[in-house]
Amino acid sequence: MKIALAQLNYHIGNFESNTNKIITSIREAKQNGADLVVFAELCVCGYPARDFLEFNEFISLCDAAAKKIAAECIDIACVIGLPTPNNNPEGKDLNNSAYFIENGEVKAVVNKALLPNYDIFDEYRYFEPSTQFNCIDFKGKRIALTICEDLWNTIENPLYVTRPMDTLIKQNPDVMINIAASPFAYNHDEERIAILSDNARRYNLPLLYVNHVGAQTELIFDGGSLVFDNTGTLADEMPYFTEHTAYYTLTDNGGITFEHPTTLIVKRESDIEQIYHGLILGIRDYFYKSGFKQAILGLSGGIDSAVVCALAGEALGPENVMAVLLPSKFSSDHSLKDAEDLVKNLGCKSETVAIEKITDAFESALHPQFANLPFNIAEENIQSRSRAVLLMAMCNKFGYILLNTSNKSEAAVGYGTLYGDMCGGISVIGDVFKTQVFQLARYINRDREIIPENTIVKPPSAELRPDQKDTDSLPEYDTLDAILVQYIEHRCSSAEIIKQGFADEVVRKVLRLVNLAEHKRYQTPPILRVSPKAFGMGRRMPIVGKYLT
Amino acid sequence: MKIALAQLNYHIGNFESNTNKIITSIREAKQNGADLVVFAELCVCGYPARDFLEFNEFISLCDAAAKKIAAECIDIACVIGLPTPNNNPEGKDLNNSAYFIENGEVKAVVNKALLPNYDIFDEYRYFEPSTQFNCIDFKGKRIALTICEDLWNTIENPLYVTRPMDTLIKQNPDVMINIAASPFAYNHDEERIAILSDNARRYNLPLLYVNHVGAQTELIFDGGSLVFDNTGTLADEMPYFTEHTAYYTLTDNGGITFEHPTTLIVKRESDIEQIYHGLILGIRDYFYKSGFKQAILGLSGGIDSAVVCALAGEALGPENVMAVLLPSKFSSDHSLKDAEDLVKNLGCKSETVAIEKITDAFESALHPQFANLPFNIAEENIQSRSRAVLLMAMCNKFGYILLNTSNKSEAAVGYGTLYGDMCGGISVIGDVFKTQVFQLARYINRDREIIPENTIVKPPSAELRPDQKDTDSLPEYDTLDAILVQYIEHRCSSAEIIKQGFADEVVRKVLRLVNLAEHKRYQTPPILRVSPKAFGMGRRMPIVGKYLT
Repeated sequence: MKIALAQLNYHIGNFESNTNKIITSIREAKQNGADLVVFAELCVCGYPARDFLEFNEFISLCDAAAKKIAAECIDIACVIGLPTPNNNPEGKDLNNSAYFIENGEVKAVVNKALLPNYDIFDEYRYFEPSTQFNCIDFKGKRIALTICEDLWNTIENPLYVTRPMDTLIKQNPDVMINIAASPFAYNHDEERIAILSDNARRYNLPLLYVNHVGAQTELIFDGGSLVFDNTGTLADEMPYFTEHTAYYTLTDNGGITFEHPTTLIVKRESDIEQIYHGLILGIRDYFYKSGFKQAILGLSGGIDSAVVCALAGEALGPENVMAVLLPSKFSSDHSLKDAEDLVKNLGCKSETVAIEKITDAFESALHPQFANLPFNIAEENIQSRSRAVLLMAMCNKFGYILLNTSNKSEAAVGYGTLYGDMCGGISVIGDVFKTQVFQLARYINRDREIIPENTIVKPPSAELRPDQKDTDSLPEYDTLDAILVQYIEHRCSSAEIIKQGFADEVVRKVLRLVNLAEHKRYQTPPILRVSPKAFGMGRRMPIVGKYLT
Repeated sequence: MKIALAQLNYHIGNFESNTNKIITSIREAKQNGADLVVFAELCVCGYPARDFLEFNEFISLCDAAAKKIAAECIDIACVIGLPTPNNNPEGKDLNNSAYFIENGEVKAVVNKALLPNYDIFDEYRYFEPSTQFNCIDFKGKRIALTICEDLWNTIENPLYVTRPMDTLIKQNPDVMINIAASPFAYNHDEERIAILSDNARRYNLPLLYVNHVGAQTELIFDGGSLVFDNTGTLADEMPYFTEHTAYYTLTDNGGITFEHPTTLIVKRESDIEQIYHGLILGIRDYFYKSGFKQAILGLSGGIDSAVVCALAGEALGPENVMAVLLPSKFSSDHSLKDAEDLVKNLGCKSETVAIEKITDAFESALHPQFANLPFNIAEENIQSRSRAVLLMAMCNKFGYILLNTSNKSEAAVGYGTLYGDMCGGISVIGDVFKTQVFQLARYINRDREIIPENTIVKPPSAELRPDQKDTDSLPEYDTLDAILVQYIEHRCSSAEIIKQGFADEVVRKVLRLVNLAEHKRYQTPPILRVSPKAFGMGRRMPIVGKYLT
């Protein structure tokens, strides 16, 4: 039996484009002699469709799309994923389903049992977990078809009390197929391989796994669909961050063969390389799926905006990136020069708009109220917010989307101005710590200097008052980021972090700053997620709370 | 047996204040001769603690607080709610538990079985549902203790496949006690009474129900704890929106007696009265629990800012409200006069800052880019954003929190400026449709004119260009709000709404506007929730989606 795995880029709620993609893929697989073509979890509507799933009309549109797809399945079978109504009046109204379609009809329906409901996942919000498990017989082979998380319960301290494969294995299947929607994080590929390999070995079955690729606002799906033989050995691995279809043949002894040269990755990419490719896809799909082409950003001469500018140039083409230099009286000469050098190196568009007359106008308007009170954060933020007003005016006039350039370290401790530099349609590096931003800059410069060397080596500064340095208010970034990883990603207590060798006072200050900044992060743009714990939908915190503040 | 129900206002993560409140209440109940005092669900840590629950230290602090509380329970028993570790390695790491404490020790632990995970609820994100149900014997009575949602499965199309009381009733309990964290919506009190009454009648048992009171950022808990006899008749109802403790005695025949005059509500409040009281509590607790006292807002002369100003005056005292008049060249004379009249009527503080020189500065800075392009939304938004920069500068200088004044109708269709009038620490009327805002204004003026009559009767306008009216861009608010209720609260399709008699073109335009504005709503402040479906954590939508756009 020849099986095609189709790793495609869907668009949430775009039934026309998703259905066309799936049908085109079915026709192509048929021409290539496949018996079965397998698509990803919830491919019909895109993932995550979130509360669109609560609209009956949306579910009907999924059903209509499935009927169109089914009509194509003559002389070829397919597996698609879609939400379907739960026929039992008790429990949630929907199931997260896979259809096995053959001869133009739905031959079997598999419902997902293990519903992820942590981090960015909300599946128990919509779906009733399945409690019935049946294999599917097709062309002399018995298939154990499961959906994503259904195989993720072999770990220590599992999140669920059931394991669908423990039931299915008793029916003597020949192969496991798993359809998934597993989002990217820089460490997720190896975790995925380990867990899926463990399943193949544990159940002594070959395993074919197909994932989404493409970004849906903040979530980036990295593809990397996988094939294992029955010993758990990785037999094939599809490319990451791009659409791909490949063909596999099941042998009678539990093995897998395939015709094309193996795409198995020999040298895995570093975290930073993966983050780079993830962010490029994230920017590209955000613009493409929103129907926009042109990005704008403020270029300060600092490393954050430089890295975002270079990423946008790569994702959208430099001709579609407008970099705006917005100097104030506190901007240093090197900042302007560094920004200009970057524009030249990258070949993007640029404009310069000085903000001094604007901030003067604000300050004189406020003179009766502020009288002779000293210059402080109020005046600092006026600069940052004036820049945002200018950039947003350019967006409104010319149809750009503003790219936010805040990094994860500053987003964590609230070192940014709400409605100022925290503005934007999408945050490009909001899940990238400052120390990683430096690594990204080095990676961007791997072949030639795009980001000026001076931008990389000079001490970071917001330049909102004379001679300001980030380290005036914050620990060195090496220290700050190390503490933040322990707190945000590992959820350690202050005592545990101090025990690792960090200064008591510094740790307490950092954790307090993180918790005090929840109200700021609540209002920031969606952040492209590249880590296992990004700010945004995957980290849900009270604003008015007292813990650690 | 004499039972005290303590309806208290907790603060998330504020273990010291929550524990002190609970202990004070235990001592008071003991003095009043109670055998048992019952507190609300998760009272130890506050509700919803959200991802604080993922921090082991946070769970340890809950345990430490429970130990302190237990030490007080000599000659009196109590029921408290807290998260506890799940001892089974399979499943989620926590349970949503109730401790029955007697003689200084935890005598019984009840874990919640039905975990709400819809709208604003995320309980399956943290908790493993219970599958074991046991009554508690205390002083000759057998108590069926359940937690909130555990009793909410008697409705048609239930969300869960189990019903804890069906097991507990077989153990012949004498009384049901339910501890809850049930947030306010204008129609939720009657729903609560109906469902709990149905439980009392169905199981032929008296039922004591204790709820949270107080606001946690966007969620307002309204109290209104309830007592039913075994026929399902409402025996007592605690006050709404305020702390309260009351005492009840179980009789041997399944009845309930109580000493104080009944507080049973004879005439229920209208939706608008409830919304008014909810918003007052919401504002008050947001400031109090954040440690702030002073609010600021921009006063345009229009009805939205007038209503918010009056609500803030009531919640915080007019001396703690700073209203800023920010006229532009498009502001009408009546706007300034109406705003000044409101300030006078209310007795709040005010300042006037004209924005024309600021917008001029922006426009001349952008002249090279904008050249001779016509005045459009770019210049309109510059006005709105300049006002936001001024208000935020006042916040930064003097320590105010900015109140957002957007209503639900304009938030729905995106009729507002991101980083402009959509700014603020908390959105006061973001869950109140424009037609309801008018009703609120009339209610605020019930005893005397606070909001000037002209503000109520003039046609709404953003005044960002000459002679602008809201109806230039939007349908009349009566029509708009009626369509929005159908779409947002009832999740009807366009076809279903059109069938109700609305014009095809108008319905499609409104639904399209709602979906296109997701990116704006993503970045708005938390919104005080007063309806069953507010924007914010209870409505989770894709930004880059294609459905209905």
